[in-house]
Order: sequence, then structure tokens, then C-alpha cells
Amino acid sequence: MGDQVGVAVGGTLYYVPLEEFKRLRSEKLSPVDQTRMFAALCRINALYMIARAGSGHIGSSFSSMDIMSWLQLQALRPSEEEGGPRDLFFSSKGHDAPALYCTLIGAGRLEFDLIHRLRRLGGLPGHPDIHTPAMVTNTGSLGMGISKAKGMIFANRLLKRDGRVFVLTGDGELQEGQFWESLISAANHRLHELTVIIDHNKLQSDTLVSKVSDLGDLEAKLRAFGWHVGRCDGNDVAAVSAALEAAGNVTDRPKVIIADTIKGKGVSFMEHTSIDSDVEFYKFHSGAPSEDAYLRAAQELIDSANRLAGELGIGAAAFETVVRPKAAVSVSQPQRLVQAYSSALIEQARKNPRLVALDADLILDTGLIPFKEQFPERFVECGIAEQDMVSQAGGMALSGLLPVVHSFACFLSARPNEQIYNNATEDTRIVYVGSLAGVIPAGPGHSHQAVRDISSLSAIPDLALVEPSLEDEVAPLLDWCLNQSAGSSYLRLVSVPTEFPAVNAEPFVVRPGWGRQLKTGRGVAFVSYGPTLLAEAIKAAGLLDGEGGNVGVIAFPWLNKVDPAWFEAIAKCYHTLVVVDNHYAIGGLHDRFAASLVANPKDGLRLRQVALDRVPECGTAGEVLDAHGMDAAGLAAAVRSLLG
Amino acid sequence: MGDQVGVAVGGTLYYVPLEEFKRLRSEKLSPVDQTRMFAALCRINALYMIARAGSGHIGSSFSSMDIMSWLQLQALRPSEEEGGPRDLFFSSKGHDAPALYCTLIGAGRLEFDLIHRLRRLGGLPGHPDIHTPAMVTNTGSLGMGISKAKGMIFANRLLKRDGRVFVLTGDGELQEGQFWESLISAANHRLHELTVIIDHNKLQSDTLVSKVSDLGDLEAKLRAFGWHVGRCDGNDVAAVSAALEAAGNVTDRPKVIIADTIKGKGVSFMEHTSIDSDVEFYKFHSGAPSEDAYLRAAQELIDSANRLAGELGIGAAAFETVVRPKAAVSVSQPQRLVQAYSSALIEQARKNPRLVALDADLILDTGLIPFKEQFPERFVECGIAEQDMVSQAGGMALSGLLPVVHSFACFLSARPNEQIYNNATEDTRIVYVGSLAGVIPAGPGHSHQAVRDISSLSAIPDLALVEPSLEDEVAPLLDWCLNQSAGSSYLRLVSVPTEFPAVNAEPFVVRPGWGRQLKTGRGVAFVSYGPTLLAEAIKAAGLLDGEGGNVGVIAFPWLNKVDPAWFEAIAKCYHTLVVVDNHYAIGGLHDRFAASLVANPKDGLRLRQVALDRVPECGTAGEVLDAHGMDAAGLAAAVRSLLG
Repeated sequence: MGDQVGVAVGGTLYYVPLEEFKRLRSEKLSPVDQTRMFAALCRINALYMIARAGSGHIGSSFSSMDIMSWLQLQALRPSEEEGGPRDLFFSSKGHDAPALYCTLIGAGRLEFDLIHRLRRLGGLPGHPDIHTPAMVTNTGSLGMGISKAKGMIFANRLLKRDGRVFVLTGDGELQEGQFWESLISAANHRLHELTVIIDHNKLQSDTLVSKVSDLGDLEAKLRAFGWHVGRCDGNDVAAVSAALEAAGNVTDRPKVIIADTIKGKGVSFMEHTSIDSDVEFYKFHSGAPSEDAYLRAAQELIDSANRLAGELGIGAAAFETVVRPKAAVSVSQPQRLVQAYSSALIEQARKNPRLVALDADLILDTGLIPFKEQFPERFVECGIAEQDMVSQAGGMALSGLLPVVHSFACFLSARPNEQIYNNATEDTRIVYVGSLAGVIPAGPGHSHQAVRDISSLSAIPDLALVEPSLEDEVAPLLDWCLNQSAGSSYLRLVSVPTEFPAVNAEPFVVRPGWGRQLKTGRGVAFVSYGPTLLAEAIKAAGLLDGEGGNVGVIAFPWLNKVDPAWFEAIAKCYHTLVVVDNHYAIGGLHDRFAASLVANPKDGLRLRQVALDRVPECGTAGEVLDAHGMDAAGLAAAVRSLLG
Repeated sequence: MGDQVGVAVGGTLYYVPLEEFKRLRSEKLSPVDQTRMFAALCRINALYMIARAGSGHIGSSFSSMDIMSWLQLQALRPSEEEGGPRDLFFSSKGHDAPALYCTLIGAGRLEFDLIHRLRRLGGLPGHPDIHTPAMVTNTGSLGMGISKAKGMIFANRLLKRDGRVFVLTGDGELQEGQFWESLISAANHRLHELTVIIDHNKLQSDTLVSKVSDLGDLEAKLRAFGWHVGRCDGNDVAAVSAALEAAGNVTDRPKVIIADTIKGKGVSFMEHTSIDSDVEFYKFHSGAPSEDAYLRAAQELIDSANRLAGELGIGAAAFETVVRPKAAVSVSQPQRLVQAYSSALIEQARKNPRLVALDADLILDTGLIPFKEQFPERFVECGIAEQDMVSQAGGMALSGLLPVVHSFACFLSARPNEQIYNNATEDTRIVYVGSLAGVIPAGPGHSHQAVRDISSLSAIPDLALVEPSLEDEVAPLLDWCLNQSAGSSYLRLVSVPTEFPAVNAEPFVVRPGWGRQLKTGRGVAFVSYGPTLLAEAIKAAGLLDGEGGNVGVIAFPWLNKVDPAWFEAIAKCYHTLVVVDNHYAIGGLHDRFAASLVANPKDGLRLRQVALDRVPECGTAGEVLDAHGMDAAGLAAAVRSLLG
């Protein structure tokens, strides 16, 4: 879940080279001691990867590192030969990918040089993807892991293959209904080949699981579902080993081990147990540490590793360093839509005592902290339970409240897709706010890139889809959704602060189905929505203007509505509209324009599209926009080719 | 879930008039005795409604009747005054709507004459909808009820209103993850205002819950989630009353009562306990009884009611009768796509030992019974757990199997929407088969009318959406999905056998992005998919031809792909294509045509659309097609207006 964008750490960064892992594997150590040392080294590399990438999940990588290390080094039998025993392991939560990558790299199962390429194009995606060697399945959206494992085991049984499947889950993840849904048939089919390990680090994205949506008596719940339940200290390798061995002896049912762990384990000030109880939010869930925090953490990890090496009598490890450029100065005129939204929501809440806000464990990312502080009695933390959240909002709306529902666009548009439709058939008014919309940030990977949300929601009758492009559009559009729209709305929000070229834009007027010229031109205009691609379009227009063009740029906030009168008006200035969809080619704004245009053809007005034609890449914003032809150069080239 | 289309029962039908309910309410009886008699009368009316409608859920209406009767007559305080105590009751499963309607009608809270209009336009929808008086919320898709109730209670607390919420659920429904997801915060927030009653009748759509996906130790599970758990005989009014009273005394947590009931309770041969253990399927889940079964059941219910009236000393009830026309003779040239699919799947399974079929408790409706019988080891019954099913299929595909996943289109395209996308990013091959697609049957209501599935799935890269229109297209299209498509596919299937006018169609050739002329013409052609609307289009073309037209009809099986070369070819015959979308206006085939045409304009080729512009009505096929302008007359009128 939560995926704050951080800043890459500059200065000297430290990592453990491959040779040290080879040396460790050749030392005569007990399996437990070898694993302890291995995990100590892997923590240094995970920290390095995240610091270098500028984002990633430290807390969860560290809490799960000892478990992952034991699995990779000692427990798995990953035979590649057809017919041989083949054990599989994957993380259902997925955001602990840095730990997974480091342990695979340390175990020699993944190319070492990838350590330098976390969240980079052609490198290691922010969440696991099967196009990376050694990945078992794609994760990043929570709660799917056990279901997938069951499918793998069914296949093994049918094809008479020997193999066990180990799945790591988070504890916040257990709030997802699919987790419980998936337990039932595993017990009924006595899937003893399945071992689930819960990385029970007590924290989810925003804060303590117990504060968000307490799990209650977890052991009793799991036992009631017919599973064998073990429990251990998940940061004690010997205890993990013992719990797995005990589970291994159970052959009549699926097994789950609650591994009590510490989020951020290994770095004193990152360990959640070091959080003062007054501190509301854990800082090292996602994002990257500051330069100072990086250095202090790296030093602690190196000291610990050296101390352990001394204890084990194997000699200290050698480290390698790279010097990274300092982070760039912050952007000059950033558009921060989430902050603008945060303020606008509070203003609305002041005016309307029936407005309530619902959140699915993303209070930081969705800008809800000020709302929660000012209107605690009107804030509903639902946990990672989007279906439950959306149907709760339905019940609230039927009972006279005005619910505003928050999550990442990728999850909100898809997981409770049927629940949103069900609510829409009740003629109530609900506003759904999907943040982290679009192809950027591209670091978390495709599980988090919401690029089919317009398609999956736009057919719902009376559900208006709107997206502000600049900060000054946020409050008026929210006001329209809350107070003027005929039915419910989906407010799509780009989360990344976006440097935006200075423009002499038309004033923003809320007029359904009408666009806003950010830059006037003649002949050709880009049409898009959201700051990410409009900033590129403005830069592209600048490039083309330099070649003698006069290219317009239009922000179009209505994602499933076009007023034919607007076409009438705009056709006076332009003969070609290039719709730049921050979305897959099908089902985005271009389709709405096309449908409108064929119904009311405007002589001489042509439509072209730039959009995603494949699953989006993971990488930096620049890398990924370039790869998909959506950066300024790509957009300019598209116009040149259609004009030429 | 399951919603078999039956045939309206002809001959004499019996119902209890309003006066009898008034008389009963005025008799001096204990609350328990009054309720017993009330339920006995309501059963007669529920049977009448379903028999007259030709479809509806008898088994579940009968199992829940005693509970609903007690709630409506004795337990609820439905004060309408603002600020007064107001108790709410709704059924989360929703398909017991006939019981809900009968008890409301009997209690005088719903207009009596609606008893004659179940599943008719302007009457009582197949599943509850708030546009009917006294309905609390829209249900019909399972697992949302507790979430909605929580939202209502949150609103009550915030607005300082007094009120309790009672929710009835099914037991098969407990397989949905959202049910478990919704339990967590109810316990954490100590929602003592909430009482859930599980109609534990032991059967779900197809057969015993224990055979489909056993619930295990249900009491232990619910208790582990922190709820108060009661248990009673749900067909014993006194026991229901006692269990509710005991629950009412619990004020520190939400309450759930497991009401052990008998599916079909009240009619000996409909009671599930009368099923021989060798009988695989319960016959009275949905659909309608045969004329003979109706008469025997009505006689039994009337005898029981009279016997009870005698016991209670209140005199036998008077019944009214209506004589209904005998059912029409079966259709002449019906297109039965599900049967064709069933055979085609078996043929494919014979050729490919890695093909497996997954089902979500709709084995009857999706045509899987022959597959299960012939390939039991390759059949996976997942229960009502679509997210789990789809992710399991993902795991199977990653492990070398070829999974074919089945459910109703409305559920399959929406509830596991994100899971389908996640699978699609793994480059595996999975075929999703969504049956009950489109606006017909319209009896179950909008929860079951899949008319936005194309929109919600079509953007997924490499996911082909295809829909056969005639039986001869089913096997070739399934073959293409399983063996030739680049990625995964969604096969959209109309379930209702459709009388199809004789046509001289072109032979069917699988050619992605190309249509098939069913009737050649000149100038104007209808383009559609699936037998329902194509049959109407052919009839409309006949009407127009009679007025001097020469209207073509084209079946277009590719819902998210158009080959521009096909436009090139078809533009030689037609100047106007009228796309008839069995779908909402946005996101259907028309949008694909429009997007293709604006990219490659064909001079003189116009596009028009007939589609749903609002949530579809509930009613008979004829009523609903007429209401939406999609029957032959409506389609012909659309063409006349665009030509005129």
C-alpha cells in the first residue's frame, strides 16, 4: 500500500559485494549462524537499494529479512529440472521487494548488478514482476497471495509434481477480505503443501495495525479456519527455523506461522518499538531516508554486521561504495494537487457537517491528516478493506451523510468496482477520490500505476469522472462533485508534485464537458488531463513552436463527458486535437472524444491519440515517459509525424 | 447467485388477500402464534409470486420466512419521524426478495397489488431496489450487507439517532471475502446496534454448502472475530424470538445469530432435508416450479395454514385465485449458447489435459455439469469467492495449466476486476467465461444485468473480449481463446435461449476485428453481438424492409478490437452502421468503432448507437427491451428517425 515518493540519497552509499556473499556461503557455519550473517549483510544492501532509488519500503524489508534469508538459504528446494521437487516462495505483500531481491542476489539466484537498478527502467521493479528472473508471481496489490499459491498447488497435484509453496504476507494485509476468502478452501482441500508466514510487524502503511483496524485474536481466527497455527519471533533465525520445522511435520492441513517481527528491524531509530507512543506515524514505511538518516543507518548496520562476523569468527566483510550526486534542488513551480485537495476538503467539511471522509490505510498519501485532526468524529479509518469501505460509504449515503472515499486510484477503481456500481444504483451522492493516478510515479510498478481506472468506471450511469490538472482546479471541481453533480463522482488525482512550466492559462470555469486552454495555439492542440502529461505537452508545444508551429495545450477535466458545443468552439482554432491519455489506449478520454465526434462530426477536425499500448514500465518518471513516448520529445515527435 | 430462467406457471394460482392479513393482525394471539400464522400465509403468497413471475428463489424465501415474519411483525421499530427510534432490516443475499415482499405486504408496509407484479416492469424487482417503497438498500450481489449496515450505524451515531440494524445473510454468502472483511471493524467499533442473522439453510445455488466450500466451525470463526454468537432453529418462531432477545441484551459488541433453517421449508418435497443424498442438485433454488409442482406445493401450504388456523382457533383463511394462461410453447429455433459452450469446452478438454475449469457456485447456470462429470479431477469448485477463484487461476496458469474461469458476467467482470488485471500482467493464458451477459434476462434486476463488463475489462492489454452470437460461433471462438489468442480472453455469453429468426448468414470465420453479415443489405446496417439484440435487429430489419428499406444485420464478435480493413470492406455496402450495444452507452462496441473510424476515417460512413442510457429496468424480456428502445420496434424507429 502506501508509496510515498522520496528523494534519492546523495553522497557516499555502501553495499556488500557479491564476493562477500560467496565467502559467507563457503564458511563453515551452522545454518542458523550463516543465515544470521547473511541477513545482516542483506540489510545493508536493501538500505543501499532504497537510498539509491529514492523510494522503497525499508520497514517491511527489514522486518522480513531474517525470514526471507532462512527461506532462500536453507528451506527452499528450487529444483529447475522437470519432475524434481520444486519449492516456491513469494511475498504476497510485495512491497518488501528490496528484501526479496537482496536475498536472491546474495544467494546467487539473481544477477548482482541489478542491486544498482531498483525502480529503474530495465532494473528491478518496485513490486515483484515475473519478467525479473526468480520471481514467482506479480504482487503489489494485497491479499492475492494465498489464492495464487493454491492454484500452484492444485497444478502440482494434477501434474503429479512434488513441491511446497511458501507465502509471506503482511499483517495489515490481513484486513483484505480476499485473505480470509482464500483460507477456506485451503483448509477444505487440506493443502499441507502450503505454508504461510505472516510478517507480523504490527504496523501498516500509516501507523499501528491495532490503531487502524485491530486484528483481534489472530491465532484464534486462523485456527477457527482450520489451519495449523505456529508462532515465533520472526527476527530470530533459530526460532523461524524451529517454527518452520514444526509446521513441516503437519501433513493434514495448511500451515500458517505468525512471525512476530519488528518493523525496521536492525536500525535502532527505524525499529517501530522505538517509536514514542505519542508519535502518530511511522516514518520508514515507504519513501527514502534522508541523507543523514541513511548514513546513521548504514553505520549501524555495518557495525552490527562486523560485530556478528567477529562473534562468528569469520572476519569482517569488505564493503564497496559509490558516490551519488546530491539530490536536485526542489522543483520551482510544483503543482501539488494532493495538498490543494486536502485544503479544499477541509473547507467543504466546515460548510457541511454531514461530510465524512473514509480512508483505506493511506491517510498520508491521500492528504487526509489535516481532516482527521480537525474532524476526528467524521473521519473513518477502514483499513486495507476497500470493498468494505465503499459499501460502508453506501450505507452512510443512504442514511443522510455525504461520504468522501479515499484510496489509491489503482485499488479504488478496481477492487471495489462492483461495490461502487451497487452504490451508484441507489441514487445517493458519494465522492470517490483516487490518488496516485496515472503512469507516474512509475517506481512502484504497474500494480500501483492507475491507467485503466477511467475505463473501468466510466460506464456507470451518473458517475462523473473528473481530474484537476492544476491546483486552482481542485477546489472548484471538488465543490462541483460535492454540491452540484447529479450523482456520484470519481475525482482522479495525480499525487506527484509536478514542475509545471509557466503558462498563461484561461481562468478555470467549471463547465461540464468543456476544456481549458492552458496555451493558445492554432492548428494543432494537445488535450490531456492532470499535471504530469500536460507539463510534457507544454514543453512539447514549446519545442514545436521553436520549429515554426503554434501548438495549443488544453486541459480537459471531464473524463467521461464531452459537450459537443465545446467541439464547435474549439474547431474554430484547431484542425487536429492530439489526446494524450494518461491511461491505456482503450477507454480513456480519446474514446469519449471519438464517440462525440462521430455523433456530431465537425468538418476538418481530426483526432489523434498518444496513450499506453502495453503494461507500463517501472522506472523514474523521465525513463518511463520516454519509454512510452509520453515525454515532451515523444509528444513533439508524434505531432511531427502526423503533420509530416 | 444462480438465477435460472423458468417458465411462468399456467392454470389456477392461489394467494392470500390483504383482508386475511388484516384479520390476522386483529386476532388475539400471542406474538409467536401470530407470527407462525403470518409466515404460513406469506409462504402461499411467495409461491404465488414466483409461479406467476416464472422465476424467483423459492428455497431461500421459504427458509427465511419465519425470521422475516418475526422481524416485520414484532421486532422492528420503523418509526418514520425524524429523531424517533428507527430500526432497519434488509437482506444481504437479496434473492429471498419474494419473502421480503410478502412479509412487507402482509404487514401493510407495501402496496398489496404489487404481489401480482414480481419481476415485471414497474413491479417488484427480482432483487431489492430502493426505488421500491420500504427497501433499505440495493442487494443482489453477495457480501455487501454488513458493510452497508456499518455505514448506517456510523451515520446514526454521528447524527445522534436511535436505531438498530438487522441484516439477513445467506450461508453460501459467507464464502465472499467481503463478509469477513466487514466483521473486523464492526467488532473494533463495538457496533452493538448491529444484529446479523445467518439463514443457515445449508445449501447454496447449486448444492450443499458443505460440498461447495465447507464453512467449517462457523461458530468458532465468528466468535474469533469478536462477535456475540447465538444459534437457533430459524424455522421455529419462538426460538428466533428467544435468540433475538438474548442478542438484544448484549450491548458491548455486534451480534450474529446462526439460524439453522431448512431450504424450501414448508413444502415437503422442496425441503432440502428431503433430498436423497445421491441427488446432486437442489431443484428449487431459482427458476419456477412446474405446474404440477406448484399445485402440490400450494395445496400443502394451504393445508398447513388451515391446520394451524384450526389449532389457533382463528378460522381458516380465504384464498383468492387467478387463472393464468398456460406457458407458451417452447421457442422454435432457439440459440442456446451455454449448451453449445458446454459441448465445446468438453471437446477442448479432451484434446488438452492441462485444461481445467473453475466455477463459483454456478455450475448449473454456466453449463459446467458435463465437464465436472467427465473430468472431475480437472474441475475446481471455488464457491462464491470470485477474487479467490481468479487469483487461483493465475497461480494455475503460472504453473502450466490452462484455466477456464466461470461466473456470471456481472460478477466476474467486476468483483475480481483487479485480480484479472494482475493475472494479465503475467503473460499467462486464462479464459474467463462470463455468462448471463447483457440486459436480458431482466427479471433478476440490475445486480445481475451485466451491461458494463466490456467497459470494465476492455482496457486490459492483451485481454481479448469476444462474444458469440449464434451457436455455430461458440466452438470456434472458444478454440481461438484457448489456442490462438496472444493472451487471455473474456468470453461473453448470453444465457437465455433466444428464438432467432431464420437467416441466410455468411459462414462464420474467426478473423479478429471482423464482423459477420447475418443479413445482407445496402445503406444501413445494424451491428451488434449476442443473440438477444441481433434477433431484434433482424426483426427490425424485416420491418424496415417492408417499408422499402434494405437493412443489413451484422454480428460483431470482437468487443475490443476492430480491423480497419473490415471498415474498408463494409463501407462498400453501407453508409450508416447502427451499433446496438447490449451495454451502457459508454465503453461498448460503439466506442471501439468510433475510435477506429476517427483514426482511419471512411468517407461517407456514419456511425450511430442504440445503447442503455440509464440503469436497466427489471421486467420480462419484452417489457424491458421495449422500455429501452431495444426491441424490434424501437430499433426500427431509431433507423427511421436517423434516415428521416
